[in-house]
Formats: sequence, structure tokens, C-alpha cells
Amino acid sequence: MYGFVIRDAFSSPHPLHQFLTTQNVDTLSIQAILCNPHQQVSADTIRLLPSLSIIVTTSTGTDHIDLSECSRCGVQVVTVGGGQFAEDVADMAVGLLINVLWKISAADQHVRNRGPSRSWSFSLGCKLGGKRVGIVGLGRIGGEVAKRLEAFDCKIMYHSRNRRPNVLYPFYSDVVELASNSDVLVLCCPLNEQTRHIINREVMLALGKTGVLVNVGRGALIDEKELVRCLMEGEISGAGLDVFENEPNVPKEFTALDNVVLSPHAGSLTLECFTDGCELVARSLEAFFSSKLPSTAVVDD
Amino acid sequence: MYGFVIRDAFSSPHPLHQFLTTQNVDTLSIQAILCNPHQQVSADTIRLLPSLSIIVTTSTGTDHIDLSECSRCGVQVVTVGGGQFAEDVADMAVGLLINVLWKISAADQHVRNRGPSRSWSFSLGCKLGGKRVGIVGLGRIGGEVAKRLEAFDCKIMYHSRNRRPNVLYPFYSDVVELASNSDVLVLCCPLNEQTRHIINREVMLALGKTGVLVNVGRGALIDEKELVRCLMEGEISGAGLDVFENEPNVPKEFTALDNVVLSPHAGSLTLECFTDGCELVARSLEAFFSSKLPSTAVVDD
Repeated sequence: MYGFVIRDAFSSPHPLHQFLTTQNVDTLSIQAILCNPHQQVSADTIRLLPSLSIIVTTSTGTDHIDLSECSRCGVQVVTVGGGQFAEDVADMAVGLLINVLWKISAADQHVRNRGPSRSWSFSLGCKLGGKRVGIVGLGRIGGEVAKRLEAFDCKIMYHSRNRRPNVLYPFYSDVVELASNSDVLVLCCPLNEQTRHIINREVMLALGKTGVLVNVGRGALIDEKELVRCLMEGEISGAGLDVFENEPNVPKEFTALDNVVLSPHAGSLTLECFTDGCELVARSLEAFFSSKLPSTAVVDD
Repeated sequence: MYGFVIRDAFSSPHPLHQFLTTQNVDTLSIQAILCNPHQQVSADTIRLLPSLSIIVTTSTGTDHIDLSECSRCGVQVVTVGGGQFAEDVADMAVGLLINVLWKISAADQHVRNRGPSRSWSFSLGCKLGGKRVGIVGLGRIGGEVAKRLEAFDCKIMYHSRNRRPNVLYPFYSDVVELASNSDVLVLCCPLNEQTRHIINREVMLALGKTGVLVNVGRGALIDEKELVRCLMEGEISGAGLDVFENEPNVPKEFTALDNVVLSPHAGSLTLECFTDGCELVARSLEAFFSSKLPSTAVVDD
């Protein structure tokens, strides 16, 4: 019916490369890979599949795919991230920010654990209105974050590779300078060699003791070891994290801190987005295979 | 210096009325009460204090004060709730809503409790964009909620005592009708005899199985027993609650549910608001006493 045969790597306990080399898969026949951002598609994997022509990822980011090898081998990479993903991720960023400022998750635990009729202790929240919010990466997601936070009367500024035309928010070419002028940093940029650990200790110290970090981009945008130190030492005030450097590993120090909110890379996992994403994946694969003979796709998602 | 003597009822383990009658307080001399929304100022208390002329409450709501007795005895009631309170409470409402839709607090607990390197299980969030949000009470707080949620591309509609002039959002004179046309209800109205239990079982059934309730008004706006039933039976999808019917009591059934987010009436407790509130309280009391001889105020906050 679909014109292709699926080999389900996702149900296998093995990583993709090991699945392909040990599970009796006919590697010569595989023309497509469907993956999510948690699976690495390495140069080795790509070289293992001489018929590979397309990789479809259920994400906006492509940092889990070796793009230079794809380019060298003529493999097309399709992402399903679009405007709708951006809106959902921006919602998550605002949700995490309010949660950290108001300590909503910590308070929820306090109310649950203190016993139903004991008095409650308050910790004062921190006002969102008037906050200076520095957005790192003013692409689709960053733009949606800015639009939302303007409605809360935040002052928006940004850093990106280049000043964006027709954008009136103050631009900082230097991230340290952006941080020292911001109360909050929201990370929305893609991960690449230029942005890996773009948030290092110097940036966090510039953000300062009342500063808050929100990361809905990729974990490795932040030097996570330094983030742990800065949070524990009070060099920054709090963090809302949807992504981590070595997912699904989360530094165990985080779990003891009540000034962080930890989210399992769920920023684009709405029911609506999932359904739309599935349709987009199906359409991409059907379009690809409709002009071909029946063949094989690896589903690693 | 301030022209008045303070009797600190807040540090006493007794409720206000008992404090006044048992702790050797000269009730004849008391001219002012400073209270918060957690303390009842009953008709009995007011009648106990023949010199009482002013009650200052650190809240927007006055449902903890017997207003008809105040009116009868010529006691002035001053609230410190203003525009700034409204913004903070609106931020809290949006934070609770995103938290419930995305299950942020439940996910945070999942990440903390599953062990640092175990895989994580996802539950899909629910998109905020496009949601039909019914606001019950389009006063200052409701207006700020509407402004924020418009930036998330929500469709706003509302119920209030009367249709508001110059407001273009659809108006529903009937709350059941509003609920049946909404995906989310946000409660922002004051508590009075007309609004007590305005959200009853019929309204919740009209909101429906995918519906979400957010309450930043007063706990007794909702029939809390019915809310517990509806949440446990899946008649509505979730709730974000900053207020409860018998604070600080929280129904113990809530603490076992992961589709509710529980906040300890913290919606206006930002550091900035607290500081501003203190100043306003001090100014109110100073203005009152500046034209009088040294006298006594009861601080119950």
C-alpha cells in the first residue's frame, strides 16, 4: 500500500548503527531513514547504506545527523519542524520561565507534601513584567518567544549570527554583553560548532545572581557542568531546561535543586504537533517512494 | 514616630477574634486593623472594637471582611490591590495554564525521580495556540489574562455580570454556555454571594473531558468537592489552582492527582508587589493616623 517495507529500529534495544550491523538487516536495500533527535545518524551509518537517499527527522534540529556526510553522499535531509513546532516550543519557553520565576513546581511539591491541612510557607515569586529578556537566536522559535513575552511587558533584546533586518529589538553581537544587559536569557538557536557551549561560565556570571536561563534549543548550547556549579553557588538564580547535554542523562545535582525546572525534551511534543508531524513524515516518505520501486525504510523513531 | 502603637496579632497562634478577647488587648483603643486574605474579620470582631475606623487588607479581594458590618459601623476598608497585582496574578494564570497543558510539574517530578540516566517516558502536551479561553470576570486581572493569551493565538471569550462596553470578545451571560464553547476556563472574578460555586458540576460537564480549569480568583468560586470528583472521573482534563475553598486546607485527593497543579495562593506574592504593598499599607495607616492622636492598630498579617 505504501510502496515500501519498514524495518523497525526503534523497537530494538540497540542504537541505529548496531541495529543495522547485527540484526540481519539488508543494508544494501535501505533507501530512507526516519529518526528523532535522540538517535545519532553518524557518517559510519550513512556509509553503511549505499542506497540511502533520504533522512526524515521528526525535529527542527539536525545536529544528530552528520550533514557533511549527507552532502557528500547526496542524501537529502527532511525536517518536519515548521511554524507549528516553533509556536509549541515558544509556549514551553514561556511556561518554563514563569515556572522558574514563580517557583510553581517547587510550590506544587510543597503543597502536596506538607499534609493537607498544615499551613503553607510562601516563597515570593519574581515579577515577569519589565524583565529584560535576551533571546539567543531570533529565528522562528525566538520570534514566537518575543511575541509572547511582549504581551507580558518584557523588554526584548537578542543575539544572533547577524543583525536581523526589519527587527527593532536591540541587537548584541556579543553574548556576554547581551547577558550583562539581561535579566533572563532564552536559548532558541540551533546547535552547531559556533554555538556549542555558547553559554559558558563567563556568560552566566554576566547574567548575574538574579538572572534566569531558559533553554529550549539544545542541551550543548550550555556548558552543563558550569551551569550546575553556577546554580549551586548562586551565581545565577534559576534555570528552566527542556534539553540537556547528554539526553536522557540529567546531571544528578539538578535533581536536588529547587531553582531548576526539568522537562524531558517535550517542547514540541503536543498531540496536535505529533499528529501533524506524522502526516508530514508519511507524506515525505510517500512522495519519495512514489517514484520508486518498492524498497526499504528504517524507522528509528 | 509613626503616631500609632502596634499590637501584633499575626505572631499569635490565635485567630484574630480570640486574640482580641483573650490576650489582654485594650479593645476600646483599637482604631485600625491590618490583615491579609487568610484572616477573617467577622461582624463579631468589628462589633468588639467601638473605635475601629479603618481596615487595610494586603489583597485585592475583601471576601474575608464582613463588608455590611463595616458599612453599618462606618468602618473604611482599604485594599492594596491595583494594576500591579493584576499583572502578577495574570502571569500566574498563564503559568498555571501552560503547566497543566504541558504537564510541566509532573514531568519535572518524573525527570527527578526516574534516576539520572534512565530513559524518560513522554506524555504529549496539549497545544495552547487556537484554544478557546473563557474568562470568568473580565476585570483588571481578566483583562491582563486576555492580553497575554492573545499573544499565544488563543480565542478569548468571557462572562461577567454585564457585557463590557468597548470589548469585542464574545460575551456569554450564561456560564454553562461559556463553558460549552470553551476549551479552558480562567476564573478571575471576585467572590460574593452571586459568584460562590459559580463553577458547579453542570459547568464542568459543559467544559468537557478535554477542558481545563484555572482558578486565580477565590477557592469558593468552584464547588471544590465536585471539582475533585470531575478530575478523578475524567469529566474534565485538568486544573491549575492558586486558591482553594478552605485555605490552607487542600483536599487530600488533589495531592494524588497529576493532572492538577497546586499553588499556595501565591499569585500576587512577588517581591516587587510585596514591597509596593508594604509601602501602600504604611502610607494608608500614616495618612489615617496623621490626623489623629497616638492610638492602636492591630496587625494581623
